[in-house]
Amino acid sequence: MGIILHYLQDSRSQRVLWLLEEMGIDYEIKHYSRTAQGLAPPELLEVHPTGKSPLITDTTDGKNKVVAESGAIVDYLIRHYAQGRFVPADPERVDDDVFWSHFAEGSLMPLLVMKLVFSMIPSKMPFFVRPIGNAIVNNVNTAFLNPDLKRKTDFIADELVKKCDAGNAWFAGGDSHGNPTAADFQMAFPLEAALSGRISNLPAPIKTYVEKVHARPAFKRGLEKGGPYKYA
Amino acid sequence: MGIILHYLQDSRSQRVLWLLEEMGIDYEIKHYSRTAQGLAPPELLEVHPTGKSPLITDTTDGKNKVVAESGAIVDYLIRHYAQGRFVPADPERVDDDVFWSHFAEGSLMPLLVMKLVFSMIPSKMPFFVRPIGNAIVNNVNTAFLNPDLKRKTDFIADELVKKCDAGNAWFAGGDSHGNPTAADFQMAFPLEAALSGRISNLPAPIKTYVEKVHARPAFKRGLEKGGPYKYA
Repeated sequence: MGIILHYLQDSRSQRVLWLLEEMGIDYEIKHYSRTAQGLAPPELLEVHPTGKSPLITDTTDGKNKVVAESGAIVDYLIRHYAQGRFVPADPERVDDDVFWSHFAEGSLMPLLVMKLVFSMIPSKMPFFVRPIGNAIVNNVNTAFLNPDLKRKTDFIADELVKKCDAGNAWFAGGDSHGNPTAADFQMAFPLEAALSGRISNLPAPIKTYVEKVHARPAFKRGLEKGGPYKYA
Repeated sequence: MGIILHYLQDSRSQRVLWLLEEMGIDYEIKHYSRTAQGLAPPELLEVHPTGKSPLITDTTDGKNKVVAESGAIVDYLIRHYAQGRFVPADPERVDDDVFWSHFAEGSLMPLLVMKLVFSMIPSKMPFFVRPIGNAIVNNVNTAFLNPDLKRKTDFIADELVKKCDAGNAWFAGGDSHGNPTAADFQMAFPLEAALSGRISNLPAPIKTYVEKVHARPAFKRGLEKGGPYKYA
């Protein structure tokens, strides 16, 4: 019947949900909830051996193909089913589209995830050694995570200002109808996550950009179908 | 004059060096050394605001374009300068090529980096609280990092057996001349890193695959030009 989106709450699935709504194609949502530890549930392992979300199953024309990994899913859907939409109107911006598509999960998200994992360490420790846990987290943040995150978010903001009209345009200039491209479906999620409190004092253009994403009618329809989502 | 590769020792630059050698195009290596803390040196910040390696500068036809992010660099070089080589001979394998290109840095490397960062925690602590550091690392490894790494490396090995002749063929089947494709330039580095001792008991097909990469004449030429590399 088309595409099945294996949708895990509060996860990278949100970007695929948004893309599917922008594309306006037939799809079905299958919902999954996180475990008590906040991890992906074992049912996802039955869909794909990595057990992560997002995953899609493409059943078009009798196929039964599972695609994993955000960047690959976004590329797959646009390449196979978007009929030329969601690719940069300006061929000179294709390099940017590819860059941000990889940067989002290759450079930005790993830092945000590491910051989240480290922030949870002290609370898992017996209270009498918690100061040691806090010291570890502070050291890693000061020596490594915070400077790297500041460099990356400053860089993103500078590019949004210089190339993307201060966050009021898309990362690779949008398609010929003014729609976002792969770069945006990939970048929106880590920027939403960054804005949700994990980093303080984010530059204003990042906020402008995320508000622009959240104002898309397709994003709002996705929110209704996906249900509560803590980053929007 | 062509491409400048900003080459940091023992880093992801190795995959770009390998690709440049496979392509046989004009390029120049600019060498950078890690700081005493093992980080990228500040000189890389003068090339690109994220300050990471690999970076390339493309000076072809008077351009002065800097490209960052492994996946984007590999895609850029193949798309602009490979004259049709290093893309899957079988169009049905393009989805695989895109998948592995994203999976390498979006899913596999972040886990390996996190394992490395956690492993360094105890040695940075005063000796009398080091048992606490070790307990933290053991907990994170047992609850989270090791199971995830096992799922991912088992999955890679299964795919290498099923689709890639047990590690004796390329991740997306290779190009029409039998050369590797983007998937391989992206996957080789994390698999080299995994094999270098960070994970024990890796499945045999992963070792077979990395040996196949290391046997390429182009890889060997890259090693000579890049100098000592601890993962080969």
